[in-house]
Amino acid sequence: MAISVDTFFLNPDAQGTLQAQIQQMIAEGILSGRFHRGEKLPSSRKLASHLGVSRITVTLAYTELLANDYLTSRGRSGYFVSDNAPVPPSYAPAGRGTDRVDWPRAISKRFTGGDTPEKPRDWHRYRHPFIYGQADPTLFDHANWRLCALRALGQKEFASLTADYYDQDDPLLIEFIARHTLPRRGITARPEEILITMGAQNALWLAAQILLDPGRTAAIEDPCYHALRDVLVQSGCRLAPIRVDADGLPPDALPGKTDVIFTTPSHQAPTTATMPLARRRALLDRAQALDALIVEDDYEFELSFLAAPSPALKSLDRDGRVIYVGSFSKSLFPGLRLGYMVGSEPFIREARALRASVLRHPPGHIQRTAAYFLSLGHYDAQIRRMSRALHDRRAALEAAVAQNGLTIAGRGVYGGSSVWMRAPEGTDTAALADSLRGEGVLIEPGAPFFAGPARPTEFYRLGYSSIPSPRIAEGIARIAARISDPAPQEG
Amino acid sequence: MAISVDTFFLNPDAQGTLQAQIQQMIAEGILSGRFHRGEKLPSSRKLASHLGVSRITVTLAYTELLANDYLTSRGRSGYFVSDNAPVPPSYAPAGRGTDRVDWPRAISKRFTGGDTPEKPRDWHRYRHPFIYGQADPTLFDHANWRLCALRALGQKEFASLTADYYDQDDPLLIEFIARHTLPRRGITARPEEILITMGAQNALWLAAQILLDPGRTAAIEDPCYHALRDVLVQSGCRLAPIRVDADGLPPDALPGKTDVIFTTPSHQAPTTATMPLARRRALLDRAQALDALIVEDDYEFELSFLAAPSPALKSLDRDGRVIYVGSFSKSLFPGLRLGYMVGSEPFIREARALRASVLRHPPGHIQRTAAYFLSLGHYDAQIRRMSRALHDRRAALEAAVAQNGLTIAGRGVYGGSSVWMRAPEGTDTAALADSLRGEGVLIEPGAPFFAGPARPTEFYRLGYSSIPSPRIAEGIARIAARISDPAPQEG
Repeated sequence: MAISVDTFFLNPDAQGTLQAQIQQMIAEGILSGRFHRGEKLPSSRKLASHLGVSRITVTLAYTELLANDYLTSRGRSGYFVSDNAPVPPSYAPAGRGTDRVDWPRAISKRFTGGDTPEKPRDWHRYRHPFIYGQADPTLFDHANWRLCALRALGQKEFASLTADYYDQDDPLLIEFIARHTLPRRGITARPEEILITMGAQNALWLAAQILLDPGRTAAIEDPCYHALRDVLVQSGCRLAPIRVDADGLPPDALPGKTDVIFTTPSHQAPTTATMPLARRRALLDRAQALDALIVEDDYEFELSFLAAPSPALKSLDRDGRVIYVGSFSKSLFPGLRLGYMVGSEPFIREARALRASVLRHPPGHIQRTAAYFLSLGHYDAQIRRMSRALHDRRAALEAAVAQNGLTIAGRGVYGGSSVWMRAPEGTDTAALADSLRGEGVLIEPGAPFFAGPARPTEFYRLGYSSIPSPRIAEGIARIAARISDPAPQEG
Repeated sequence: MAISVDTFFLNPDAQGTLQAQIQQMIAEGILSGRFHRGEKLPSSRKLASHLGVSRITVTLAYTELLANDYLTSRGRSGYFVSDNAPVPPSYAPAGRGTDRVDWPRAISKRFTGGDTPEKPRDWHRYRHPFIYGQADPTLFDHANWRLCALRALGQKEFASLTADYYDQDDPLLIEFIARHTLPRRGITARPEEILITMGAQNALWLAAQILLDPGRTAAIEDPCYHALRDVLVQSGCRLAPIRVDADGLPPDALPGKTDVIFTTPSHQAPTTATMPLARRRALLDRAQALDALIVEDDYEFELSFLAAPSPALKSLDRDGRVIYVGSFSKSLFPGLRLGYMVGSEPFIREARALRASVLRHPPGHIQRTAAYFLSLGHYDAQIRRMSRALHDRRAALEAAVAQNGLTIAGRGVYGGSSVWMRAPEGTDTAALADSLRGEGVLIEPGAPFFAGPARPTEFYRLGYSSIPSPRIAEGIARIAARISDPAPQEG
């Protein structure tokens, strides 16, 4: 039986080349059992004319399927579904039964319902996206990332790409971090003191599992990164939220029974405060007095375009007390899921074993691609490109904020990618954010950053890592207008 | 000051093109502070002659560094380190202090010291590697994987590559699994019932966290995959190891107070037993009577080259009682870290939230690459190629085993990639494995698969997924010789 040409359609929304689409269409027809072994395909001429593509495109797709043994060619008779082509199973999928499990009882531990708000996934459709932590495609060195990925996919690199490292990391990436990245933060570390993680999130999570339990107390900054608070709540430890000031976390406010201190000294999240050197020393002294550990999240040090970054807290640590967390998510892109942690060997050993149990290791190909991108200098070039753009955007933002009489509650002295804003007292910035969405403006309400129950509602965060400079002024004007007149405007 | 040409060396072991090596050498010189702003580089002619490469290679490397703003060109005067080139920090890295942390006290929970043995990372150097679960470069469709990765790295795909999905998966990959992969196992599932995981390991770990606690009992097969036992021990639950027979897990042996049953019905790990249909129904009945859940690890169903695979246990599940775990690690490569789990929505919801907390999501680019590789038919073509090779290797293995009088304790009726062997009583296969290493033969001792404390020592596993057919017979002969004469042979 011949397969009718009429069963083929090109999807107008499809991605990829026409050849790939045709190949995919035929492969899926075979895999799903619509096309059977021995059936004849339309001639390349006929299919090309039906789809309105060139004949060579169809011929190339057929040739590819020949190589994969989905099709065979019988000389001038044309192409047929191969006798070796895969067949779908002969048994029909089972119908759906009724779920008879008592799930509320079966689930021993819940993880849903944390503080972390869902991010709008369609943020790039908004005209004024003051969102935080997403990648700006116009700033990313896509071409060189692609080249590095290709190199890491080379035949010679097969082992690094495919090996089940079990609990090891790519030695090239570890070496670059040890020799180039950490020295810039004033940190010296041996390879055994470094672990690659699935982003900073994964590093914070690992630290919490190893260092905390229901009998221990974790001090966190208030406000702080909401996902960190979720992780700590899940660990069951006691939480001590410490209100930050313009210099970040005040060491004197740490309670006497603190086991682990989570802090963002170089760029407090979300207020952007930088902790002065004197306070860093005081924090280390206080930690020593408490015999507490410190987890330092140094998530954005590269974006220091207004002043040189201060050395990491870890660089002042003489006792092995600080566990340092770094990330490539902000400077490369968050979907990469690549970060690292640095700490004393007994700690890293446990973190490595836990990581192996949870997920083995971050994929080898991604580690190797990042190692190339870093060592070829593309990473630093990209940071400088981003810094120039962020510098302009920050200036545009500050000018517009001043012009519209808005209040900045915190602006990173050395740069960064966001400012922390305060609306007039009594403003509910969650409602403000909802109403601004309709006008194409995305802002981030501040309440989820605070420890409950009485969370201040008048703060909000403005990110400028994904909004072009020319759209900043109008976006700020709309925020100001909506703050002074919360009722939706007519027409 | 000019940078001397003598400071440049090509590393004979370096990978990548000459151009990339030169570029990397200069970038690293700048990043590490050896080369300073304004310093003149050797002329391209001079450097080319010094390194013994063509002048155009050096010129291309310089041009690339110009584009990245590491170098500037001053017309005929040559190339200089750019005034915008990155500078290393002015503060020196801190010297190392003394670790003053009481780590045994600070670490609240230990994860080191499980049963999972370390794999030899240099297995490919051995002439007879009967190892399990590694990728064979000669069987992997490297060219098409690379093409799919390139397509997924295309400019148009930037969003899927970079987005912080937070807790979402690539819809293309989910759709393919739902429409093509699961129907072959007799399973119907909606996208909300599927979660992408970092390999099967990650899926098993997530299930254990959500379903178990110290008050609950998990039944496991004995012997079983050692890493699963490690995960369950870490969860603190009670463990009930059930000795498997030639048909896999016997349902009657499940204790009355079982909450979760972990099983590998289609291909018992490591004995390779396939559970017959009648026993599968009995297992589901028993689970219903116990009101227990079942976690089905279906890790190797694609490698069914001797007989059609049996439908998954999940396909017989009418109650939503079975959580199904699949993996691409065996059929693609383990370093990919890509698997998936299928279960009722309340369970998948919690698993998704926990995954978001631990690591957010598997990297978008890897999900998209796999989606292309699957939907273009390369995956099925590869499985068939692997199956043909494994078929030959299995035949060679069985012939050699018979010829040398060794004893097979379990061989998968439908195929697979390993056989389960039994040495004469009293043999310590750990010692046997050690002694065989010196002869270029790798085997896997069986003891770590068993629940302690009195573990049988005479079993071992022979994998044939990474050893070429022609080397099998001699490898088996060496094993047989060493079993009958455990003393190392002279010269």
